[in-house]
Amino acid sequence: MLARIAHVYRRNVMTSRTARSLRGDFPHLHLITTRWHDNDVYGHVNNVQYYAFFDTVVNQYLLKRHVLDFERGEVIGLVVETACQYFEPIAFPEIVIAGLRVARVGNSSVRYEIGLFRGEASDTLDVFSASNAPAIAEGHFVHVYVDRLNRRPKSLPAALREALEAIQSAS
Amino acid sequence: MLARIAHVYRRNVMTSRTARSLRGDFPHLHLITTRWHDNDVYGHVNNVQYYAFFDTVVNQYLLKRHVLDFERGEVIGLVVETACQYFEPIAFPEIVIAGLRVARVGNSSVRYEIGLFRGEASDTLDVFSASNAPAIAEGHFVHVYVDRLNRRPKSLPAALREALEAIQSAS
Amino acid sequence: MLARIAHVYRRNVMTSRTARSLRGDFPHLHLITTRWHDNDVYGHVNNVQYYAFFDTVVNQYLLKRHVLDFERGEVIGLVVETACQYFEPIAFPEIVIAGLRVARVGNSSVRYEIGLFRGEASDTLDVFSASNAPAIAEGHFVHVYVDRLNRRPKSLPAALREALEAIQSAS
Amino acid sequence: MLARIAHVYRRNVMTSRTARSLRGDFPHLHLITTRWHDNDVYGHVNNVQYYAFFDTVVNQYLLKRHVLDFERGEVIGLVVETACQYFEPIAFPEIVIAGLRVARVGNSSVRYEIGLFRGEASDTLDVFSASNAPAIAEGHFVHVYVDRLNRRPKSLPAALREALEAIQSAS
Repeated sequence: MLARIAHVYRRNVMTSRTARSLRGDFPHLHLITTRWHDNDVYGHVNNVQYYAFFDTVVNQYLLKRHVLDFERGEVIGLVVETACQYFEPIAFPEIVIAGLRVARVGNSSVRYEIGLFRGEASDTLDVFSASNAPAIAEGHFVHVYVDRLNRRPKSLPAALREALEAIQSAS
Repeated sequence: MLARIAHVYRRNVMTSRTARSLRGDFPHLHLITTRWHDNDVYGHVNNVQYYAFFDTVVNQYLLKRHVLDFERGEVIGLVVETACQYFEPIAFPEIVIAGLRVARVGNSSVRYEIGLFRGEASDTLDVFSASNAPAIAEGHFVHVYVDRLNRRPKSLPAALREALEAIQSAS
Repeated sequence: MLARIAHVYRRNVMTSRTARSLRGDFPHLHLITTRWHDNDVYGHVNNVQYYAFFDTVVNQYLLKRHVLDFERGEVIGLVVETACQYFEPIAFPEIVIAGLRVARVGNSSVRYEIGLFRGEASDTLDVFSASNAPAIAEGHFVHVYVDRLNRRPKSLPAALREALEAIQSAS
Repeated sequence: MLARIAHVYRRNVMTSRTARSLRGDFPHLHLITTRWHDNDVYGHVNNVQYYAFFDTVVNQYLLKRHVLDFERGEVIGLVVETACQYFEPIAFPEIVIAGLRVARVGNSSVRYEIGLFRGEASDTLDVFSASNAPAIAEGHFVHVYVDRLNRRPKSLPAALREALEAIQSAS
């Protein structure tokens, strides 16, 4: 129902695209278990938590690829813009699958796009079957990479760029 | 420095407006104290927490105006879209002042705009002097109001509409 | 190292027991994925988050057993006491396995004991092999059940009592 | 009502002390504003958040006294034990006043005691009148200080010890 509302709302009011991404659109997937207090007084995961899921899949991917050293790395990714569109509610104890793709790699910046999907009972931590399931929410993160010390923009290190291009969307 | 980076980034890459709102642009202000664990491994308030501040000032205003009854109200405001631009970092134990204005009131939807400002030492909980300080971050929340039971969009109740129009921005 | 420190500390200063529980001591297990911002400025999961894990496994068990209806249930479990001892740090993106047992069932109260364990790479969401791994942290929750409306203590409903006794520890 | 329940419960079941501390028992006070999502599905601040308040007042005091340098300090305070007793619920948008005292200073460890109090409408950020108000919750934190690098227990630095003794309780 929220999906339909959101659709009607967007058709009438907003200029942003209305097509929901599919799970198969995201080359990297990460499973996130919900927690009791993700739910707010309305009994569904609070809108703020979606960004915690976004932040988690971005950093999990970078750590997995060994291109994020948050203690000693020479560059830091500063978040300069985030956004999220909400299509369907989800609630504890449901499982979330976070999909990640890179939409644009600049000289010192990256635009990540994230889709959140409802987990299925058979999901395990390591195996995700491809799926046509539409996102329950999707959004983006823009990072600008800067020197840890002087905080000036720096070109992306080669290893980071390689990891980003590995999950860059075709379009 | 983040402000300058963000500015350069936006000038080069993005189409969104680059002018930062001022504290005086927001008719409703609410003080928020930061917490130890708002800071992330980089020692600044994590990007996700900004949305907790947004959510807090929106609901604080509605509760203050007695137009939000989250236990028994006949309508519920579903969040369908949120976004934030980050201009300057802030860190615990600094104080945040959250400004709120309403940008658009539709039949069953509202677009809130929020600006976050660095608190000053002399701030108290009830008194805010007008200020030309620029926002350290700003963003928006779009709520669609629906019937609590059948979740279909409903016209905004008169009292809610009145409270929203009281902080509607001129433009 | 934290384990040894904690041990020395407890031997010298505290009266509480020093033996760490084992994963096999907990009849109910629930897997929890860590999140980027569970980590604090020191790069490990912040002490507060452990209680979010406790709260999650308790409620997950009750929901799984269909004895918690947080929207319409006639009784509510009020938390009157919680505590945690920390033995070893853990950090995102590690996985936590939360173990739950019931230590005492009173007329209207329950004492839950929770142990947290480091997840293993082969863990899936549904299958946990028994293990002799010691807890990285453990603690307890005391709930008193009250009438939702008048908030007076109520005897535990039969179905709830049955679910609790199913994971009651032998001792 | 929760206070009475908790009292009855403790009288019957627990061995811990039942006397609630008063605001005047805490030499250091810090004001904390609640947030929308501190509330859980039951409409009150979730039990986990109380520990976020504890963590906040401890670190706020240490930062204020300039004895916590979480980026470069040679010693780190590891949390080895925390606990909380809950006497009365509180809910957003209420204000919390966190009181802090030091119960015991060892060679390399500290036991902090924290009391949480309901804020009053006239509270400002800097001024707290003494009060006989009883705590709505209270608990403790035990920190063991270790060398940042090798994580072995270290004697408390003199400046830290001085700051701790300044708020040590008489008993």
